[in-house]
Amino acid sequence: MKRIGFIGVGIMGKSMVRNLMKQGYEVSIYARTKEKVVDVLEEGAIWCDSIAECSKGQDAVLTIVGYPKDVEEVYFAETGILANANPGTYVIDMTTSTPKLAAKIYETAKEKGIIALDAPVTGGDTGAKAGTLAILVGSDKDAFDACHPIFEAMGKNIVYMGHAGMGQHAKMANQIAIAGTIAGVTECLVYAKNVGLDPQTLLGAISTGAAGSFQMTNVVPRVLDGDLAPGFFMKHFIKDMAIASEEAKDHNTTLDILDHVLAIYKELEEKGLGDLGTQGLIKHYEE
Amino acid sequence: MKRIGFIGVGIMGKSMVRNLMKQGYEVSIYARTKEKVVDVLEEGAIWCDSIAECSKGQDAVLTIVGYPKDVEEVYFAETGILANANPGTYVIDMTTSTPKLAAKIYETAKEKGIIALDAPVTGGDTGAKAGTLAILVGSDKDAFDACHPIFEAMGKNIVYMGHAGMGQHAKMANQIAIAGTIAGVTECLVYAKNVGLDPQTLLGAISTGAAGSFQMTNVVPRVLDGDLAPGFFMKHFIKDMAIASEEAKDHNTTLDILDHVLAIYKELEEKGLGDLGTQGLIKHYEE
Repeated sequence: MKRIGFIGVGIMGKSMVRNLMKQGYEVSIYARTKEKVVDVLEEGAIWCDSIAECSKGQDAVLTIVGYPKDVEEVYFAETGILANANPGTYVIDMTTSTPKLAAKIYETAKEKGIIALDAPVTGGDTGAKAGTLAILVGSDKDAFDACHPIFEAMGKNIVYMGHAGMGQHAKMANQIAIAGTIAGVTECLVYAKNVGLDPQTLLGAISTGAAGSFQMTNVVPRVLDGDLAPGFFMKHFIKDMAIASEEAKDHNTTLDILDHVLAIYKELEEKGLGDLGTQGLIKHYEE
Repeated sequence: MKRIGFIGVGIMGKSMVRNLMKQGYEVSIYARTKEKVVDVLEEGAIWCDSIAECSKGQDAVLTIVGYPKDVEEVYFAETGILANANPGTYVIDMTTSTPKLAAKIYETAKEKGIIALDAPVTGGDTGAKAGTLAILVGSDKDAFDACHPIFEAMGKNIVYMGHAGMGQHAKMANQIAIAGTIAGVTECLVYAKNVGLDPQTLLGAISTGAAGSFQMTNVVPRVLDGDLAPGFFMKHFIKDMAIASEEAKDHNTTLDILDHVLAIYKELEEKGLGDLGTQGLIKHYEE
């Protein structure tokens, strides 16, 4: 495989496109606003005027867009991927989206001789940049094996999770863990500040112990620097948690803490803070 | 310093006594039930029939007992540490207890020429065994420096947090982070099982990424092995979270997620599960 179409060139997508080009892939891109992707075009990506154009004649088409409704449109519109990709194309949705939609794309693609994979990622903007994303893949095992070199260009921990949709389920499990963890480390920081501890000293003391986490090590320092800019958008995390909560309920499972963290984030979003990074959770405690 | 009295030879305490003896300290111990500490006595610890006996003529007296009321008794009883330790003795409470009690011990000790430190630890049974505990110390900086070699025998990350009580505050911050984190990883595991993911594969995929934490890496595998035995007792974690919640409120801070996790654990305790390890949280989701 050599020719890749890439749709959704945002914070994450740009780094992924760069890493694909570094490995010699010929990457065609489509974005809603061309101005925003001038940098990667200058670095060698090929511009497409439409999703249809970006889907035709590729070995694989990769997508990483915002919401399930965007995924739905990009795949199922008349001008979308499934109507325009050649039979035999691998179409890989790396958006965090619903397991149900992943299964639907897989089935529809199959009827057209197209092979769909769900392959959401974790590792955030830093992982995308460093090419160290974890990639959680659902589809047929053969399809996973065939696309492995593409995944390897972008990530380090590339794991086959099972049939179509299981990549998304794995990502949901990941987001559920993050929800509790980011709440815990945020409340830890709030407490530390309010009782008069030096947060930096505290972090140095506890971040390698039983309280330690990626969230503590990577997110708390941003908060301490007053940096609430999105590495990962709060509004996207809310979308993910809402999917996870619903999927859990579909499986007769209530995740109390997930639902509580989601409720707090939704309050922040209603106050217009959805464009902050997930670390903006601190705002809930600062009123 | 050479002679150490050690009171509270439980899961953690035994490992700590062993590590002190390994560094050449002469360790006298007191425990409520002698039979339970026969192993460390055979390894060279000296038996004392009372706390008073264990407090006299020592360079330092270390305590790691269960609850603040135990700390109160061990320090303030007529037969306790402060009434019996020689002036100049360092008395170090390594129990996770209240910042207020730590300050009270410090003040009372000072009147008697005794130097008190609060030095709760983190790292659990495995950290105690390996001598890699984090030790969070509150007291005068001079006292911290004087006791540093003792701490070094038991821990790796030994941090001065500030005046008396600040070690306890740091430990509270630590427990607050754990509360959210353990809830997140437990709900992650519950979700994974219920949607049909293979938990081991999932852990391999996500534990080094943004969802990763000590709790995920060290606690979830115990749950998967069906091992809910206490590395750290649920009932002690409940005590810690209750102190943290109260201290937060004293500082005009409501920690929503901490309070919610605490409420769930209390329910489990009311069902008679307080003697499980903290990973027993999974029981909440298994009904």
